[in-house]
Amino acid sequence: MALRLIIGNKNYSSWSLRPWLALTGLGIPFEEILVPLDAPDFKQRVRAHSPAGKVPVLIDGEAVVWESIAILEHLAERFPDKGVWPTDPAARAHARSVATEMHGGFGALRGAAPMNLWRPIEPLALSEPAAKDVRNIARRWGEARERFGAGGDFLYGAFSGADAMYAPVATRLRTYGVELDPVSAAYVEAIHAHPAFVAWKEAALKETGVLPEDEVDWPTVKRV
Amino acid sequence: MALRLIIGNKNYSSWSLRPWLALTGLGIPFEEILVPLDAPDFKQRVRAHSPAGKVPVLIDGEAVVWESIAILEHLAERFPDKGVWPTDPAARAHARSVATEMHGGFGALRGAAPMNLWRPIEPLALSEPAAKDVRNIARRWGEARERFGAGGDFLYGAFSGADAMYAPVATRLRTYGVELDPVSAAYVEAIHAHPAFVAWKEAALKETGVLPEDEVDWPTVKRV
Repeated sequence: MALRLIIGNKNYSSWSLRPWLALTGLGIPFEEILVPLDAPDFKQRVRAHSPAGKVPVLIDGEAVVWESIAILEHLAERFPDKGVWPTDPAARAHARSVATEMHGGFGALRGAAPMNLWRPIEPLALSEPAAKDVRNIARRWGEARERFGAGGDFLYGAFSGADAMYAPVATRLRTYGVELDPVSAAYVEAIHAHPAFVAWKEAALKETGVLPEDEVDWPTVKRV
Repeated sequence: MALRLIIGNKNYSSWSLRPWLALTGLGIPFEEILVPLDAPDFKQRVRAHSPAGKVPVLIDGEAVVWESIAILEHLAERFPDKGVWPTDPAARAHARSVATEMHGGFGALRGAAPMNLWRPIEPLALSEPAAKDVRNIARRWGEARERFGAGGDFLYGAFSGADAMYAPVATRLRTYGVELDPVSAAYVEAIHAHPAFVAWKEAALKETGVLPEDEVDWPTVKRV
């Protein structure tokens, strides 16, 4: 039976983007079920699949998994050859830890700068806690790229679950015009150029009716 | 090479308790390195092992893992026969999801009721968000016990990583005299009776100098 992934709106649901991008980017086939976040019966519709009533939810036969990092770990176990985590033990441990830090942390940035793929790029003044989150994220990205990134443009070279976890952050840093070091800025571009991300963003813009693209200055990250 | 786990003080470091309890409760040998949270060079001492500078950290050869749920997933992968997660697919998916919800959630309860194994048991009035966290936790425990708990006293029957993740919450509910439904109350008792937890608590009390036990009314959960 095919995997099914239940997600919210593509423009706003940053948690939904994570497993969707992992599945799509790693070539694991699945069926997508989109429940609009503003549907009056949203909770009931999601609860029909999962006790938590939150998106995303992955359904894999009898296994019902929610929470994005738990979905990634489920996929890593079920599809060991798909590269959810890097294979080198040191890189794998780093990727797993750094992806999990994203799961529970960086609340100041997440609160201040919600993912919004439609929003025109405009600088936002960050609070000190949010700016500290950005510094910590950039430090992790720098460590990963320097120590493990040699084989490609992503955190651990090839695209992995860690990139799926940080993709929404990459969009926030771009949307809100946050100034970044060159390594982090290049990584933000790499995420935006990934075909799976491009496909998600196109669907998100279609969803919100923001087309054609030339009305929105997507390709340039404005600097503060 | 033996696993090494770097932890903080046993009385206060609820995050350290989680992997320690998993390793000890599941019979995975390891060496413990305790860095007191109030040591003036705490960050430097932890950074000698891990870039995050936070406890807990697991060192497994080249692999350095931080964040408690990432440590559990690392252990599940490295020691597939130790029962970090239940083997039944539906139970395993539920356990992984519920353990991960603990990792990132229930912030109101965690903020209001810090783990303190020394503190005499006294009821605490909970804010509505903290009380809601308790209801959500009890709902998850109820689901797990009802659907998957038949083989023992723990969430999924036998002791697993999910119990390790929720053990600090069980201590908080007891310490702060939170009223619970019978299933949750029995589960809190099961955690407190687990030999690995008893060993941790004894070490925590020794650390704070609170002995003998008869000065502290541990065995009775007072009700509000």
